[in-house]
Order: sequence, then C-alpha cells, then structure tokens
Amino acid sequence: MDRKKILVLIFDGLGDRPISELGRQTPLQAARKENLDWFAANGINGLMDPIAPGVRPGSDTSHLALFGYDVFKVYTGRGPFEAAGVGIPVKHGDIAFRCNFATVDANMTVTDRRAGRIKGGTEELAKALDGMKLGEGTEVLFRAGTEHRAALVLRGKGLSPLITDTDPHEEGAKVLESKPTAPVAESTARAVNQFMHASHRVLEEHPVNAKRVAAGEKPANAVLLRGAGVVPNLEHVGERLGMRVAGIAGVALIKGMFRASGMDVLDVEGATGGLDTDMTAKARAAVEALKSYDLVVVNVKAPDVCGHDGLATEKVKTIERIDAMMAVLRTDLGPDVVVAATADHSTPVSLKDHSGDPVPLVVFGEGVRVDDVTRFDELSAAKGGLGRIVGRDLMRVLLNVANRAEKFGA
Amino acid sequence: MDRKKILVLIFDGLGDRPISELGRQTPLQAARKENLDWFAANGINGLMDPIAPGVRPGSDTSHLALFGYDVFKVYTGRGPFEAAGVGIPVKHGDIAFRCNFATVDANMTVTDRRAGRIKGGTEELAKALDGMKLGEGTEVLFRAGTEHRAALVLRGKGLSPLITDTDPHEEGAKVLESKPTAPVAESTARAVNQFMHASHRVLEEHPVNAKRVAAGEKPANAVLLRGAGVVPNLEHVGERLGMRVAGIAGVALIKGMFRASGMDVLDVEGATGGLDTDMTAKARAAVEALKSYDLVVVNVKAPDVCGHDGLATEKVKTIERIDAMMAVLRTDLGPDVVVAATADHSTPVSLKDHSGDPVPLVVFGEGVRVDDVTRFDELSAAKGGLGRIVGRDLMRVLLNVANRAEKFGA
Repeated sequence: MDRKKILVLIFDGLGDRPISELGRQTPLQAARKENLDWFAANGINGLMDPIAPGVRPGSDTSHLALFGYDVFKVYTGRGPFEAAGVGIPVKHGDIAFRCNFATVDANMTVTDRRAGRIKGGTEELAKALDGMKLGEGTEVLFRAGTEHRAALVLRGKGLSPLITDTDPHEEGAKVLESKPTAPVAESTARAVNQFMHASHRVLEEHPVNAKRVAAGEKPANAVLLRGAGVVPNLEHVGERLGMRVAGIAGVALIKGMFRASGMDVLDVEGATGGLDTDMTAKARAAVEALKSYDLVVVNVKAPDVCGHDGLATEKVKTIERIDAMMAVLRTDLGPDVVVAATADHSTPVSLKDHSGDPVPLVVFGEGVRVDDVTRFDELSAAKGGLGRIVGRDLMRVLLNVANRAEKFGA
Repeated sequence: MDRKKILVLIFDGLGDRPISELGRQTPLQAARKENLDWFAANGINGLMDPIAPGVRPGSDTSHLALFGYDVFKVYTGRGPFEAAGVGIPVKHGDIAFRCNFATVDANMTVTDRRAGRIKGGTEELAKALDGMKLGEGTEVLFRAGTEHRAALVLRGKGLSPLITDTDPHEEGAKVLESKPTAPVAESTARAVNQFMHASHRVLEEHPVNAKRVAAGEKPANAVLLRGAGVVPNLEHVGERLGMRVAGIAGVALIKGMFRASGMDVLDVEGATGGLDTDMTAKARAAVEALKSYDLVVVNVKAPDVCGHDGLATEKVKTIERIDAMMAVLRTDLGPDVVVAATADHSTPVSLKDHSGDPVPLVVFGEGVRVDDVTRFDELSAAKGGLGRIVGRDLMRVLLNVANRAEKFGA
C-alpha cells in the first residue's frame, strides 16, 4: 500500500450558529470560499464532535482529543499545558500552575489581581524566580506568559496537585495559604507557601518593580497560583502513530499542547495567533514541513478570536483569508498528502464563547470516497459520507485514508 | 450567555416501520401533522438510538438513557422503577419486585395468575399487606398497581436481589419457594418466603376476597413475585444538570422513572396514559410548569399503545392528536424555551412490541442550526443536521443548545 503523509488543519473555533446579521447563516455559509468548497466537493465530509455530542470543549481538551487521547483520562487541568505553552519543558509528575503577577500591600492583601495589567518586564521578573530551590529538594521552573500571566512548575519527589489555590480570586482579600486537600499533599502545600513568600521578597526588591513604583505604576510584587495539575504521562503522538510529527501554531497554549504531545513545534514568521496572522505563510511552512515530517498539524486561531469578540463580518473575512491559505495548499500539495480541514470546536459569535455544537470535517486525498457535498459548512457536512464522528476517531480515520492503519485481527 | 429552559417531549413508541395498510409508509409518514412538520422545518433533525444502534429498549431503560444515565451501569431491573411508579418511596438498597395478585388453591397451586383479572379492591388488599414486619428487621412496603398488578419493596439490612422468583409463570404449577442464587441472599430468600406465606394468610381472610368468592369471582389470595432488583443509587437529574426538573406522564412506570431520577412528578387532570388521554392538557401543563422549572419532560404513552395493539390507523390518528398538542406549544411557548420532540423507542405496528429501530428527533429553539428537513418522520430525520446520536447524548445536546453546558477544559 502506498503510504501517504497527513496534514491536519485545525481552524480554531470555526463552527458557528446562524447569525441574524448574516441572514440566519453561519459565517461558513456566508463566506465566499471557493477553495474550501473545492476541498469539500472533492473530498469526503462529515460532522465531528471534538469530545462528545453536546460537550463544550476547551481548546486544550479538544486538541488532545483530536490527537487521539482519551481526554477523560489524560486531562489534568490547564496548568500543565499552559506551562508547556510558555516553554517550560514539563515532565510527567511535575506539578504545574497557572499564575498571575499581582499587586499586594504590606499585609499581603491583593490590591490588583493583574498588577495594573503589566505589559513589560515580566520576563525579567520571571527570570528572578526561575531556578529557585525550595525545601525537600523541590525545584522551581517559572516563565512569563502574555501580559500579567505566567506559569509555575514544581519539580521534585512526592509532589501532589491535591492542594488549594493561593489566588483568592478577588481583590481586597489576602493571598491565601495553600492547604492540602489530602494528607499526601502536605509537603507540596508547604513548598507552595514557601514559594509564595520567597517570591514576594524577590519581587518586592526587583528593579523592574522599583521602576514601576517610581513611575506611579502598580508593582508586580506577588504571584497568585491556581489550578494545580500534575503533568500527565502522555504517550507521544509520534510514537503511538509511528510517524514524525510537527505542529505549527501562533498561540502559546496550542504550542504547549503540541509539545506535551511530543510534537516538534515549528516556528513560522508572522504566525501570531491573532487576526493579523500570516496564514499563507503557515500554509507554505506546512508544505515545507511535509517534506521531512509524516504528520503536520496546523492551528489557525483567528476564527476563534472573532467568535470570542462577537464579530460576525470579521469571522466571514477571516474565513475568506483561510480560503486564500487553502488556495496555496490546493496548488502546492502533492498527491502523497491526505488533508483534513476541521475545527477544534465551535465559537459562535452569538455566544462569544465555545459551544458544544459539532464542527464540519472534510478529508481530502486519493482514495477517499468522494461524496456529493459541495460546500464546507456545518449543515452541508451533515450530509456527507463520513456521518458524525468524535474527535478521538480523527487520527484513526486519517491513518486509514493514508494507508497507514494497522490491521486489528487477521 | 442567555440560558434557556428545556422541554422534552417523549412520544412513547412513536417510531415505526413501513406498513402495507398505509401504502408502505410509517404512521409518521402517513399522518397529517403540520405542526410537527413545522417544528422539523424550523429546527435541526436527526436520528436517535435510545440505547445503541439495534438495541431494543424497554420504556424504563430508554427513559434512563434519555435522562443521561449509563443504563448498562444503573439499570437493575424493572421492579425498582415499577415500585417507584406506584408511589412507593424507594431508597437506594431496597429490594423491589413486580407482583401479581393471583388465585391459588389450598395446595398453593396457581389456578389464575391474574386473580380473574381483578379490577376493584386491590388497594384495600395492598393496605392489608403494607407495613408488615418480617424476620431480621425487614419491612414490607406494598402498593397496588393497575388491575392485578402490584409492587413489593423489602427494606432492611443485608438484603440482596440474588434470589429466584416465587411466580411459577404458569397456571397449574405451585407457588415456588424463593431460593438464593448466591449465599449472600439467604436471608432475603427467607424473608420473601415468609412474606409469601404470611400474605397468603392475610389475603385469604380479607373481606374483599370473601365478597369475591360470594359473588362467584376468583379470590386474590396470593401474591406472585418476580424480577427482584435492588434500587440503584441514581444521582438526581436535577443535581447533575443543575436544573429544577419536573415530569408529566400518565402511566405509573414512567412516573416511577421520573421519581427515581429525582424529578418532581406533576399530575395533570385527564392525563391517563391511554388512547383517551388529554394531550393538549399535558401541553398546557408543560407550558405552565416551565414557569417554575428549568427542564420539563413529558411522556405521551398513546402511540406505544397503538403499536402494541397492532393498530395502524389508530396510530396515525394518535399522531394527528399529538399534532394538535404541538399546535398549543407552537403558539404558547416563548423564545426562552428549547424544545425536543422524540420517542423513547419504536413500537412497530407490525411487531406489536418495541424494536431497535432508531427514532426521529427534532430540536427547536433559538440558535439551532436549522437544516433543510421539512417533515418529522423516520427517514426525513436521517437527512438532518444532527446526524445520528444515542439517547445518552440527548441531555448534553440540549444543554448545549440551551447555553447551559459547562466547558470541559479552557
């Protein structure tokens, strides 16, 4: 059998619901998108529930599902994937937290949960905390994220995520002492509290904060921790599938999903994750990557951004820019590549958040049973030859089309 | 997000197969039903397998699945739900039985398994048995059902359902001694046998039976037990979904399903569960209930009755009466309600019993992706935007449309 390579295009938050402003059409129905429709017309189409029918996925859980993991078993919270996303080389057993740089008074009362929405200097602050040693041999790995966000990883023996947050989740309240919710986590809570106090001392005296105070800005003099999660033992996608796998994405969380799943993360100039992202650069990078990788996954964040911001016509325009990206793939990909185009979830403009509505999926490549669907949208896909599948089946479906599936039985 | 309320209409046994008498159409295809079709035309449609493709559901298992339970885990037999249906306040751990009032001779040989299809007086007979104390602290809860039917619940320590029936399931045979099928159930079998003999003595001497004998009727002088089942620990639907939930039904078994699932059971005058049931009264009661409940489930038994009785034209007429009910809902429901209309299973007229054929499902409400299906029937539904789902997904799908689904992940 002629084994093919696979390109998976995940258009983040692409699915939608009918929108009055668009004449009761979804953005996909309203957009001019001859290339996406060409793939639909020449491929096999279906609906996909990223996790299960009706379940509202996060971007993290849905990507794990699309990579073939059982999310109900492996998803241990957002912390581990955000930490991987900001570049911390997480390991199975690490305890990861989502963090805010915050402003506290002398009494450890939170006066600003976002340290005046701090924009600059957090990398230097993070560097001052990274590498700190805590009691009982626990190491600190700390990185800044966007704006006031950051990630903390504790690495050591006998750590447990069964502890409470230090983040009081409101201003005017004191930073909380972390408490174990089970006896096994006593030493972890001690380490967290030690970090809370030690990091406060380091940050208070840091030149970045001295400058902020001098400029009348709120100092980022504390770190609030929440959502402790243990880094799961994810079998690498490439090992599971027997393929060399790379991921292309603009945003940190998705890069973290790629890294945690054992994929090589390829950087593409101009791939920002925002509305200004250079999608055709991503397409060209994917074509290039398929020369050395067997499976390339591309995430395009822009449609999700439009959904969260409630921008209907912007989402239509974004889809038309995606279509220009598909034009590149339509011309540049050879017959040795199977292409899947889909979404990680719907982000309806009317909701400004993710929904549990299924997403369209088209699979294109030599050998697929081409159905009579001619348009790529949520309702046309429902009439396609794939029926309705769940995200966890995607990789197996693609391996099959790529003539890479192993026989189960004889 | 604008959270909506949910109305679920379960037309019992509605699905069917092509019938010669109806020109090879199903009753749904043959009926004039402009309102049901209006909901189909303005909603999203699909097929639903109440349990799984090809599985022939009972009304009890299908309702549990439609409420979101994993029936393969929680279904412990019909006894517990029938007992709840006749109004016994069952508790987790109780052992419940389905019972017949029967006629036995002096030798305990069954001469009539239905006590001459006794109609009156069973409530008094039941009252004489209810509250009886057996050995080892076991209590008896006993209620009459319709005609010769009744339900028994044993409540006490160390009870087990692993025992054989006392019902010989044929006339001319002696009432059987219950036997444990595992050592753990020895004391339960003793309690059951004690109940069998004690109830016989009480019933023999009961004035209701004295009158029956005087009138030349067969006395209801024994209780036959079958289908022992332990009452499962069902997490209440309302707690699971975070909603106030009510159910409307005419028949005892379905009321029992509602009660066992923690729903409030609303009584509607004229809602009998038979062909003469007042369906528009149920519709009006549902509209009213939606003022104080978030989720209202309505069961309409009539189509199932037609299926079991093999009445094709009667099933068509019943669907036309259902359509009048839908007219009420079409006018009276506000945009704050999501409506699902479906069935708990198919009861084909040609089979006179339940079948494993999937049932049509329409979901109507603001925000659904309206597909191009214009008729509500088994084959039109197959072309809808929902594809094919299983019953256990129904609640999640509806929560999503109602903007009530919780996000899994971030």
